[in-house]
Amino acid sequence: MKLFYAPGACSLGIHLLLEEIGKPYELARVDLASGAQYEAEYLRVNPKSKVPALLRDDGSVLTEYPAIATWLAKSNPEKNLIPADLDGEVRMMELVEYIVGTLHAQGFGRIFRPAKFCENEAEHAAIREAGKAIINKGLAQIAEGLGDRPFLIGDGLTIADSALFYFLFWIIDRAGMEVPANLKAYYEALKARPTARKVFADEGINVA
Amino acid sequence: MKLFYAPGACSLGIHLLLEEIGKPYELARVDLASGAQYEAEYLRVNPKSKVPALLRDDGSVLTEYPAIATWLAKSNPEKNLIPADLDGEVRMMELVEYIVGTLHAQGFGRIFRPAKFCENEAEHAAIREAGKAIINKGLAQIAEGLGDRPFLIGDGLTIADSALFYFLFWIIDRAGMEVPANLKAYYEALKARPTARKVFADEGINVA
Repeated sequence: MKLFYAPGACSLGIHLLLEEIGKPYELARVDLASGAQYEAEYLRVNPKSKVPALLRDDGSVLTEYPAIATWLAKSNPEKNLIPADLDGEVRMMELVEYIVGTLHAQGFGRIFRPAKFCENEAEHAAIREAGKAIINKGLAQIAEGLGDRPFLIGDGLTIADSALFYFLFWIIDRAGMEVPANLKAYYEALKARPTARKVFADEGINVA
Repeated sequence: MKLFYAPGACSLGIHLLLEEIGKPYELARVDLASGAQYEAEYLRVNPKSKVPALLRDDGSVLTEYPAIATWLAKSNPEKNLIPADLDGEVRMMELVEYIVGTLHAQGFGRIFRPAKFCENEAEHAAIREAGKAIINKGLAQIAEGLGDRPFLIGDGLTIADSALFYFLFWIIDRAGMEVPANLKAYYEALKARPTARKVFADEGINVA
């Protein structure tokens, strides 16, 4: 397997899952800053020009966080990265979709790349504020659901936690935003996992 | 079961699945135009103020298209709304995520509600054009993958088809955009299903 990633991008969540699974894999860095995602070499991997993309051992490529994460989880069932019961599975999917589709794409997207929302720079401050409002509302709801538990669903790490992990890395370590105290503690505990330390080191990211 | 929907919104895809399954359910209309999604009554159903939301017979509410659709499919396995093999399931999820997360949220969102992207009306024409570009690029990729088959994955309707169904309803019947010929034929065939006719009639939508 080979993970196409960009340092600190949402591919961080898939990278964490690969470490949690513990099977051999390679990393292929995609230089988003230089536009490598739009060049012919990467378009052959993922014509959508996004990371993460996972090249599997059969030569096929899988894209989109929920699909890659589900495939990794279900092809390594002994790691319990998806709840075994249907209700747990769909509650987990509901969280994944909210984190990936709303908090990341609608919330952080506005903070990180306001020009994708509106090219006029005079509008960017207002767009960033709108992004922060989406994030604060969403994190308050997730914090309420989490309580003082160490994982979002059940007793162990699932693919919803690896999604919230990459998102909180952006919010806490990159954007320096305040988050509810239980989410801060949750993130610090995830960050302390040896698998997370390895992921940050592999991607060349310095975190406290 | 009770589906909270708004006529012609993305809840149309869940509505179609309920008809395909054929078990009894109720409909509860949420009047998005008057802001009912922000009122206390609906906030108790879905604090995210979105449709679709599905009230299940155990009294719990499920939200987010991929989660609701997966629960409906997997709790009615005889309908084969999700491929039985893992590779089919994750290929289907990859399409669902692209349709819901990119084509709908990033593409159609810019056309339908540019003010959510930037409040300055002077920017709305450019934002709509950016949305159309996202949609045209995405539908070209989906059309290439579909070819002349009647369903996105395998031999029958899956929850990826019900997602593309609501999206193409917007693009073809509401926005009047041109789409690749095979996608037009695919949509017309879905629209001719008795289940789809029932859904449009229930929601008070006139389609040709």
